[in-house]
Amino acid sequence: MSTMRAVQVVGYHQDLKMTEAPMPEVSGPWDVIVRIGGAGVCRTDLHILEGQWAEKSQVQLPYTIGHENAGWVHAIGTAVTNVEVGDKVILHPLVTCGLCRACRSGDDVHCETSKFPGIDTHGGYAEYLLTSARSVVRIDDSLEPADVAALADAGLTAYHAAAKAAKRLTPRDTCVVIGAGGLGHIGIQVLKALTPSRIVVVDRNPAALELAKSIGADEGVLADGKQIEHVLELTGGHGAEVLMDFVGEGGATSEGIAMTRQAGDYFVVGYGENINVPTIDLVSSEINIIGNLVGSYNDLQDLMALAAQGSVTLHTQKYALDDFQSAIDDLDAGKVRGRAILVP
Amino acid sequence: MSTMRAVQVVGYHQDLKMTEAPMPEVSGPWDVIVRIGGAGVCRTDLHILEGQWAEKSQVQLPYTIGHENAGWVHAIGTAVTNVEVGDKVILHPLVTCGLCRACRSGDDVHCETSKFPGIDTHGGYAEYLLTSARSVVRIDDSLEPADVAALADAGLTAYHAAAKAAKRLTPRDTCVVIGAGGLGHIGIQVLKALTPSRIVVVDRNPAALELAKSIGADEGVLADGKQIEHVLELTGGHGAEVLMDFVGEGGATSEGIAMTRQAGDYFVVGYGENINVPTIDLVSSEINIIGNLVGSYNDLQDLMALAAQGSVTLHTQKYALDDFQSAIDDLDAGKVRGRAILVP
Amino acid sequence: MSTMRAVQVVGYHQDLKMTEAPMPEVSGPWDVIVRIGGAGVCRTDLHILEGQWAEKSQVQLPYTIGHENAGWVHAIGTAVTNVEVGDKVILHPLVTCGLCRACRSGDDVHCETSKFPGIDTHGGYAEYLLTSARSVVRIDDSLEPADVAALADAGLTAYHAAAKAAKRLTPRDTCVVIGAGGLGHIGIQVLKALTPSRIVVVDRNPAALELAKSIGADEGVLADGKQIEHVLELTGGHGAEVLMDFVGEGGATSEGIAMTRQAGDYFVVGYGENINVPTIDLVSSEINIIGNLVGSYNDLQDLMALAAQGSVTLHTQKYALDDFQSAIDDLDAGKVRGRAILVP
Amino acid sequence: MSTMRAVQVVGYHQDLKMTEAPMPEVSGPWDVIVRIGGAGVCRTDLHILEGQWAEKSQVQLPYTIGHENAGWVHAIGTAVTNVEVGDKVILHPLVTCGLCRACRSGDDVHCETSKFPGIDTHGGYAEYLLTSARSVVRIDDSLEPADVAALADAGLTAYHAAAKAAKRLTPRDTCVVIGAGGLGHIGIQVLKALTPSRIVVVDRNPAALELAKSIGADEGVLADGKQIEHVLELTGGHGAEVLMDFVGEGGATSEGIAMTRQAGDYFVVGYGENINVPTIDLVSSEINIIGNLVGSYNDLQDLMALAAQGSVTLHTQKYALDDFQSAIDDLDAGKVRGRAILVP
Repeated sequence: MSTMRAVQVVGYHQDLKMTEAPMPEVSGPWDVIVRIGGAGVCRTDLHILEGQWAEKSQVQLPYTIGHENAGWVHAIGTAVTNVEVGDKVILHPLVTCGLCRACRSGDDVHCETSKFPGIDTHGGYAEYLLTSARSVVRIDDSLEPADVAALADAGLTAYHAAAKAAKRLTPRDTCVVIGAGGLGHIGIQVLKALTPSRIVVVDRNPAALELAKSIGADEGVLADGKQIEHVLELTGGHGAEVLMDFVGEGGATSEGIAMTRQAGDYFVVGYGENINVPTIDLVSSEINIIGNLVGSYNDLQDLMALAAQGSVTLHTQKYALDDFQSAIDDLDAGKVRGRAILVP
Repeated sequence: MSTMRAVQVVGYHQDLKMTEAPMPEVSGPWDVIVRIGGAGVCRTDLHILEGQWAEKSQVQLPYTIGHENAGWVHAIGTAVTNVEVGDKVILHPLVTCGLCRACRSGDDVHCETSKFPGIDTHGGYAEYLLTSARSVVRIDDSLEPADVAALADAGLTAYHAAAKAAKRLTPRDTCVVIGAGGLGHIGIQVLKALTPSRIVVVDRNPAALELAKSIGADEGVLADGKQIEHVLELTGGHGAEVLMDFVGEGGATSEGIAMTRQAGDYFVVGYGENINVPTIDLVSSEINIIGNLVGSYNDLQDLMALAAQGSVTLHTQKYALDDFQSAIDDLDAGKVRGRAILVP
Repeated sequence: MSTMRAVQVVGYHQDLKMTEAPMPEVSGPWDVIVRIGGAGVCRTDLHILEGQWAEKSQVQLPYTIGHENAGWVHAIGTAVTNVEVGDKVILHPLVTCGLCRACRSGDDVHCETSKFPGIDTHGGYAEYLLTSARSVVRIDDSLEPADVAALADAGLTAYHAAAKAAKRLTPRDTCVVIGAGGLGHIGIQVLKALTPSRIVVVDRNPAALELAKSIGADEGVLADGKQIEHVLELTGGHGAEVLMDFVGEGGATSEGIAMTRQAGDYFVVGYGENINVPTIDLVSSEINIIGNLVGSYNDLQDLMALAAQGSVTLHTQKYALDDFQSAIDDLDAGKVRGRAILVP
Repeated sequence: MSTMRAVQVVGYHQDLKMTEAPMPEVSGPWDVIVRIGGAGVCRTDLHILEGQWAEKSQVQLPYTIGHENAGWVHAIGTAVTNVEVGDKVILHPLVTCGLCRACRSGDDVHCETSKFPGIDTHGGYAEYLLTSARSVVRIDDSLEPADVAALADAGLTAYHAAAKAAKRLTPRDTCVVIGAGGLGHIGIQVLKALTPSRIVVVDRNPAALELAKSIGADEGVLADGKQIEHVLELTGGHGAEVLMDFVGEGGATSEGIAMTRQAGDYFVVGYGENINVPTIDLVSSEINIIGNLVGSYNDLQDLMALAAQGSVTLHTQKYALDDFQSAIDDLDAGKVRGRAILVP
């Protein structure tokens, strides 16, 4: 049995460990082995190490971490027709069944029996990864795996929410984005590409507002305690048709709802606190609260089309796979600008 | 100046009073004077007398109460083309401007400058009422004003929510209705007319469940403390694609969300308590919370079409206008079955 | 190698022939072998024998005919999770790839590489049939394969068109159905189940109109040369919001468009003649012409849910598999009421 | 009675004539008098003079021509709340009732009793024009009436079709535009603003293709007889998800349908020839033919929002009102680049 280098969780509250792990092999007809070109280092990886996912994922240790992956197709099963060996691909974070009602409706994220590499099975901090034909998306020649890997999960979540919002936004509407950080930064670019509505970004950080304006925001509003009044002023006292909350904590949810117009949609993407709102307020304003999970396989295809156009880009900071501990440490210390990417 | 009999609010925490009030007159081109054939007596009317609406409505006392009205067209302004004198009509509860963005989009409920007869201007506990061509809906010959008046507000609210829900319901879906009372009773009939999905009704009252089944519910679930488990059992452990909550208090909101399937919609119609839900739950389940106000003018037209088909009926208990105090007292004492209607 | 009885096309312009054919075997992980319980005999089968499909299908003779199939699961591949051996199933007419964009969007009918058993590969006039996990739909205990087989193609086409139409139909609308024959008969039942709009049926045959009314049509209009005037009268001179044309020949298309209201939809389902309409007419009326093919896998699931409710039924005339020639002859001679079904 | 200068049709097959006509006056509460700042000279005006509209419009001669108008509010009726005297406005081409089902649904273009200034009542080749509060749209300070007047009809038609198309276009889709002339030129700009899909423009004129690329087209295809093959090549042999035909004559309709992908939409906007297509083709491809008339009041509001952003611009050639004959002559002689505008 051949082996490969892989960074594994060997125990909670312990450091990750580089190991020689078995090379994944094709055993089923839709199996796809991907040679990793880039694996995103995500805050969720820190939470895994803290044991926060142990009960939920029921994963057996040791296992290989990493859920934001892109690379090159290395081997394929007999039934795979959508990619060929050598293709550059990004990986949808889930491996889905293809047979349940959700999968048959294009809503594969709600698959009844999905696996989640990097969370509940081997992931991408490694040389190779096993996934499925249903999870690989070919990327444009102009894109490189290490540059787009982080779009596989964080970017896909932002895309999914922004694309849903764009369906109802018109040239006369305002979309307020709370939080111009990792997800918000992608969300703003997607909104700019998909809708002509005015984009107003709210953030505590003046530098984040400047960045937001440079990538498409029409207005920046400093979250200085008067942000609700400021947004209402910008919208004739009515609030925004759509509010996209990429923060979801520290009071963002009640602020967000207060900035949403009658019959508007408040999108919850970031999370942390509770939404706590009187039913009478939702009834009298007819505001909807829209839940948002990661995007579907189709969403990832669409996002890669935007990336190929140059409409969505992401700042990355690359580390060799062997330097995984530096990447983890830098992320934990807040020293990563954009996204840390491991490159085997 | 000619006068008419009208029942008015003369002070908060006081009884209503029958008075001789000025007859309304046509002064604007879209004005419509309706001779009242039936005026619904609603729990909101009790709340008005308790002063709960005083600040919100800013209405000047004395004024004529009554916001669920139907009757016959008595006089029309010069520009009115949609009804003629003598037509049987039901009245949309709002008088809307017709020029703001909401009105121009068919979403007149969110009109920026609407009036609300019976709440902030003279209503229908009277012989005549002034409204607008934009608020009158002709009813079928087979229908009588006193029989349909209560559909003008309570029924219209239930219709609006149920029709929104029906848009996403398929023959394979389940719609759970919490509360088979006044609104729920209409909602069940509307769902039955608009969607082939399975309708499951949850109520504390076995008699209400029997009634629900007789008007279209496929299953009744007693709210005996195990209703969540029961609904999950009926839905393969997944919950319902749509949850319509006509209660909105006493724990109904958290129960309702717990009965809602991943990617499902929880409709809040009844109100009272707060919705208090962790953002992580909405994000991981991708459930939406849908606010619902009263229906639009188009909704009222659609509801009257269903009523003309016999698909939606309402039990009413009629009182002469002079007996208004009995109607109020009966409602307050829980003695009204269906809806109390004043008939001048 | 074990064998089974199968009725095959051995040459064009020749009779079908009963043969001993190889039993299909499971070779791929998503393969499903179905023991046939009923196979619909369709007019297309006659056209195949006349050679009309030879060039289009490129099928190699001899092969087993029959594209409307239902039965019991006999064997399954290793990856099949949606059915078990012994399950009663109906078969979607296509075997689709599951990987192309159309398949991933729930629109599997437009799969880029589908197979069509009975047309371009072995079909269901046989004891057993090879299909895929992606094509089998479990049916309710209350349904029998021989009773529902004909819903697999003809019924699914009618369902698909009617369900699309129902999405825009409201209680105030009129849907005109041209042709209450095989497809129309299913379409009317589906419309009745899915929409509260008025259903007006146009047919040349008074008996067909009577049947139509017994299964849900609100009005019958005899196609006596004055049907356009009659439909316009019934719709206040405007025409219908939706026109469903299950005929598509003999002048039905221009009549249908003439019966369609401004901003309405004309659905073409039946075919034969050309649609020939001035562009100025489509522009000034803003009428849409909607194409309709067979339904998706999800549509078939929905249709089976309606069948389980008893909302859609079909008259069938059963023949033993050995009597295949009688079934073909009866169909050719117009002696079949409803649908002829072969039962092995 | 005061008078104003107005250019009128005094007889068919005769030149227009400058006259002293009565100043329009406010008589109804929703009346709005606009001082004309620009009136578009349209090919339809030439057709009116040729008598082509005489029977259809039933207009009484003499009357003032001109149906693409913008200017400043000069006087308003008592009920007008959406504009004030002095506001800069563009005029929706229709004056609609506000009470019929279409008007109440935001689909005012299909109003049952609309008037059409410049076609069946006095239009805008004049100093002042009478319209309704329902037809005036305030424009941004940065826009001038004479610059946007031509967006009132031609531009609005292109916007309406393009916005409908944009609703279904995704980043992976292709939208083919046939004809980069007056309407197409606006349509391309609108598509660019509303959708991230690839825009491919087909035209006979290489200069038009260059212009198309400069305003947002991703690809230009010369209509040299091989345009169908060329478009199929660009779309992997499948054709475009959406085809927008701004020509509608000279074979464009059959070419357009041939360039449309399975399950795609062919939008007919330009007109002239018949669409003549076998029903079997629409059924087997499931292509829809979408009719398109001028846009609604809401569409005009949205278009003005795009214009205010600078996303839609139009080349104009201005003439003094007194020089109306030169404008007409230049248009007839093909000497106008962009749109001729009369400025009183």
